[in-house]
Amino acid sequence: MYKSIKIYLLFVVVFSISCKKQNDIVIDKMETHTSVIERNDIERVEPPNWWAGFKTSELQLLINHPNISKAKLEISYEGVSIKKVHKADSPNYLFIDLNVDKAVKLGKFNIVFKIENNEELIHTYEIKSREKQAEDYIGFNSSDVLYLITPDRFANGDTSNDIFLKKTGINEAGQKVSLLKEATINRKDDYARHGGDIKGIINHLDYIQDMGFTAIWSCPLLTNNMPRSSYHGYAMTDFYEIDPRFGTLSEYRELADKAKARNIKLVMDQVANHCGIEHWWMKDLPFKDWVNHQEDYEKNKDKWKWDLATYSNHRRTSNQDIYAAKADVDGNRDGWFTHQMPDLNQRNPFMAKYIIQNSIWWVETIGLAGIRQDTYPYPDKDFMSAWAGAIMNEYPNFSIVGEEWSYNPLLIGYWQEGANNKDGYDSNLKSTMDFAMQSNIVKALNEEESWNKGLVKIYEGLANDFHYASPQDIMIFPDNHDMSRIFTQLKGDVTNTKMALSYLLTLPRIPQIYYGTEILMDDFDKPGDHGLIRTDFPGGWQGDTVNAFTGEGLTDAQKNMQEYLKKLLNYRKNSKAIHNGKTIHFAPENGVYVLFRVLEDETVVHILNKNEIEVELDLKRFDELGLNAKSLNNIITGNVIEWNDKLILKEKGSTILTTKQ
Amino acid sequence: MYKSIKIYLLFVVVFSISCKKQNDIVIDKMETHTSVIERNDIERVEPPNWWAGFKTSELQLLINHPNISKAKLEISYEGVSIKKVHKADSPNYLFIDLNVDKAVKLGKFNIVFKIENNEELIHTYEIKSREKQAEDYIGFNSSDVLYLITPDRFANGDTSNDIFLKKTGINEAGQKVSLLKEATINRKDDYARHGGDIKGIINHLDYIQDMGFTAIWSCPLLTNNMPRSSYHGYAMTDFYEIDPRFGTLSEYRELADKAKARNIKLVMDQVANHCGIEHWWMKDLPFKDWVNHQEDYEKNKDKWKWDLATYSNHRRTSNQDIYAAKADVDGNRDGWFTHQMPDLNQRNPFMAKYIIQNSIWWVETIGLAGIRQDTYPYPDKDFMSAWAGAIMNEYPNFSIVGEEWSYNPLLIGYWQEGANNKDGYDSNLKSTMDFAMQSNIVKALNEEESWNKGLVKIYEGLANDFHYASPQDIMIFPDNHDMSRIFTQLKGDVTNTKMALSYLLTLPRIPQIYYGTEILMDDFDKPGDHGLIRTDFPGGWQGDTVNAFTGEGLTDAQKNMQEYLKKLLNYRKNSKAIHNGKTIHFAPENGVYVLFRVLEDETVVHILNKNEIEVELDLKRFDELGLNAKSLNNIITGNVIEWNDKLILKEKGSTILTTKQ
Repeated sequence: MYKSIKIYLLFVVVFSISCKKQNDIVIDKMETHTSVIERNDIERVEPPNWWAGFKTSELQLLINHPNISKAKLEISYEGVSIKKVHKADSPNYLFIDLNVDKAVKLGKFNIVFKIENNEELIHTYEIKSREKQAEDYIGFNSSDVLYLITPDRFANGDTSNDIFLKKTGINEAGQKVSLLKEATINRKDDYARHGGDIKGIINHLDYIQDMGFTAIWSCPLLTNNMPRSSYHGYAMTDFYEIDPRFGTLSEYRELADKAKARNIKLVMDQVANHCGIEHWWMKDLPFKDWVNHQEDYEKNKDKWKWDLATYSNHRRTSNQDIYAAKADVDGNRDGWFTHQMPDLNQRNPFMAKYIIQNSIWWVETIGLAGIRQDTYPYPDKDFMSAWAGAIMNEYPNFSIVGEEWSYNPLLIGYWQEGANNKDGYDSNLKSTMDFAMQSNIVKALNEEESWNKGLVKIYEGLANDFHYASPQDIMIFPDNHDMSRIFTQLKGDVTNTKMALSYLLTLPRIPQIYYGTEILMDDFDKPGDHGLIRTDFPGGWQGDTVNAFTGEGLTDAQKNMQEYLKKLLNYRKNSKAIHNGKTIHFAPENGVYVLFRVLEDETVVHILNKNEIEVELDLKRFDELGLNAKSLNNIITGNVIEWNDKLILKEKGSTILTTKQ
Repeated sequence: MYKSIKIYLLFVVVFSISCKKQNDIVIDKMETHTSVIERNDIERVEPPNWWAGFKTSELQLLINHPNISKAKLEISYEGVSIKKVHKADSPNYLFIDLNVDKAVKLGKFNIVFKIENNEELIHTYEIKSREKQAEDYIGFNSSDVLYLITPDRFANGDTSNDIFLKKTGINEAGQKVSLLKEATINRKDDYARHGGDIKGIINHLDYIQDMGFTAIWSCPLLTNNMPRSSYHGYAMTDFYEIDPRFGTLSEYRELADKAKARNIKLVMDQVANHCGIEHWWMKDLPFKDWVNHQEDYEKNKDKWKWDLATYSNHRRTSNQDIYAAKADVDGNRDGWFTHQMPDLNQRNPFMAKYIIQNSIWWVETIGLAGIRQDTYPYPDKDFMSAWAGAIMNEYPNFSIVGEEWSYNPLLIGYWQEGANNKDGYDSNLKSTMDFAMQSNIVKALNEEESWNKGLVKIYEGLANDFHYASPQDIMIFPDNHDMSRIFTQLKGDVTNTKMALSYLLTLPRIPQIYYGTEILMDDFDKPGDHGLIRTDFPGGWQGDTVNAFTGEGLTDAQKNMQEYLKKLLNYRKNSKAIHNGKTIHFAPENGVYVLFRVLEDETVVHILNKNEIEVELDLKRFDELGLNAKSLNNIITGNVIEWNDKLILKEKGSTILTTKQ
């Protein structure tokens, strides 16, 4: 994107004769590029720019300016034409449908708004050149492992953005904002801003790469200008702006570029369901149905508190349920997530287009490798399908993962593209989230072994893969930013934690690991407490006595886990058998469960053993794998074993072997 | 079947001149029907007879007779030809492929077996006329409620079959059989025979009809000539014989006919997976692969005990699991259910044909309205599809329900015809069993209400119907013969039991109710104990002090439950809305969950209320049903209410209303 600015230089046409010659010369050089007088009279035009060469030639601009609805529009530019101008319910908005030809001229042009008394307002708009082919936006897939980061809590790379001034319009400091003119971070408060930022992630890309992660999913980085608890990022108040406390748009692009240089993909966390109540448009909503339950909100705006909002009924099964009452379908879709999060009405076609274009704008501006879409089963589901479809139409090799927190494989399967649903619904979503398997892994390890408890939970859970359109495109994780830390879920058992991590890293899935898992971060003090789950990563702040990046001050157990995960991740990085191999597993017997991944001459064997005492594993049972007399390497210890009649399992834990030398 | 015998009289052709004239006259009357000399020299020919006019013209006869393999065969009969004669591994078997033309002559003919020294053995075989059109075998469906009976425990209608003599070959009397020459029933032993029989069911058809049941599923009635615990019927030792302790073939037919006269359908319980170890063929198996793990069995026959058998691994998910090891697939399918139940090898094509023809023989002989197939996920699954397909091919309106005890809707759905499975598997099975919903109902009622507990279990459980090919063809039940009684599962709570029963009777399902549920039969003394679950139905035996058929000696609670169920069942019998109506339900709120069934002008409202104290139900929420200002009748109390703003729910329980007058 930035390159294009350099190439297509901008010129101010000055009508004085003294400058004429110079301008002529430049125009000759630029050939067909007409100069424009650049002006930005309009308060807000979104998307802020666009690109040439999309499959879809339609572009809809949101114009927000006092009384702009009365204006007459003019655009005179090769390849751009006005198809239709829509007035909104508020006089301060216009929605302009443009047709952007594939052969549109690259560069800037003026949109002229003719208002009263022959006055003109002018907004200069730019059509940029796309930096790469649509096919080259390669999404995350089963060859990747995503490192999930809560950016406020990972590393503070730029202390200059820790202080945010009330007068800049940016709220919050972990204290009552109205009392403050200037606010700063407060690391003592789990729900305040801690100062982590984009620069912090950039600074530690080497660590992330060394650990063996191949993708980063950062929780949202867009502005959350909310009065409190905004650190999580899910209450966006501007869909086109990086939160200044996290950095700048150019830093975000820098992160993407530097990550890419390390073969690390960048995944953006987006929210189509809601915004934050401090979103700029909440003061003057374009349409009467811009957000759901808008009438109630507008009537009660001044005294708006939790008791006034109509909340989502959270009956997410109403998306699939053929018997669901209309009242319940509406209740799930249209209710607010919290009273601080207005529920966007995606059935308003202008809102729908706004969200779709916003997503495409970010993919193109940053060069994303994927989107994680929040609260997937809450917006209008037909819209969600259209949204994902529009993105995948432009970026055929891209990836989107949608979040539905459900333990029901029927729902996990329903949302995946190609699900062959009876109701004909196709989400266009490549990836869904395997909360069912996450829960099964925890149960499998926490439970004592019996006929229907323990390892059988993952064996039978994985058997459900027969139902999924594409199991290996589903995301698996030991925990995430909304969930108790895996080490806490597994009651502080390091062996179980290793078993959980190694198992999910061997599955036909896309694994995601939350930052800090590698150093056994926990939330024992207040299990499940969101603020605590999102604890600061040690070493991310100057003066931290423990530094997980360097290893300084880590306990032996932490170092050991970090090393364990590093070995596994780095093996996985190049393991075609894990990425795309055939999966064969054997029902648990006597507390031992064995999973194989096979591709060509690479076989990875994962043995989960829950016996505390030494046991002998009869290898004859696995004859169909044809491993007899082969040498296998232990991925963790480096030891070599011969695959013969039996294998001695000395103690509880995972044994991960490979035929690869 | 019996009529045809009367019509197509049989003649003994006597070659003495004295009889010639008389025979001629008769032959004239019978026109083309050739007389045969009837002989039954062969020990066993199965199926014992066949019919004209099936879609499939192939018929394969199993012939079992000493050294029969050496015989040459001859059949001379219009419309029957020998296609192929197969030798088996044992010299005492032959399998004859016949072609039975659609236009086959009805009547008897001789199969001539030419053995050594020009000797002949003759078996007279009959081709009967079908009594009704294939389309007229109407299976059970969502308009029915099945009454499940354990025949040994329901009613003893014929005491003459209570005594079984060792010398007739019939074992067992609840004591060690080898010590006895004569044995009788022993009602004090829960695992012995109690004397219930077919006559007992026939005698109480009025009761079953009055209660409102429209179908009977009796646990197996075929001979189980096993040394002990044979009362349950699932260890068959002859697939073509009614157990003499239950009665005769003609009594079974009488039961079907008399039931039919009361609009009650008869469903037969069949087992394709295994037989009893005392099955006649176990002494001389036709093929080396007639049963699975046959070599082990034959080697250890004399000392055969539980420790020698290779049991099924019961890993039923291996049927679907795309990652299942071959060893596990084989282990589930080929292992024995118990060491007393040899596992039939349906991949032997002669066994496959034997089972299919056996099923068709019973449908046609008895005039069945359905089959319940035991242990569905244990036999070869391709065979099971072929089996059901073969039956449905002959009887397009028939019903088969297969038993898979799984709480996983993915598996329940997989086995239903039209499931659109990714692996292309189609079971041809109209109905599967909803163990998932059964379990959800129990949890919903036993659990305290909370966000994810209580009524939400049935609300979200029912939402899974979106996945099923045909939810209303799935069978639902409060319990069955293998499961703790519903009254026990619901901890002796009568209100909860009524709620469970009324809910499942209102669902888009085929309900099945186990005998005795109507009088709150329980197994509190030893919960889950099979013998106890299958307690004698009081009044079924002469001299019983309590008689549930007459009501004599029942407690008030029992009478009340019987009456409750009777009202519900009799309403359901004629309720098109419940049979085929649209289903609409509303997410539970404040401990109240409401389900509607709607067809044309009939709306049935089912309100499940878990509040112990009086609550007010705001009816505005249900506006989309359009019931405002209508009068509704309470199906149980007969009270009429006006559907207006609100409804007072005085106490915990179900309220079932109908717009029907």
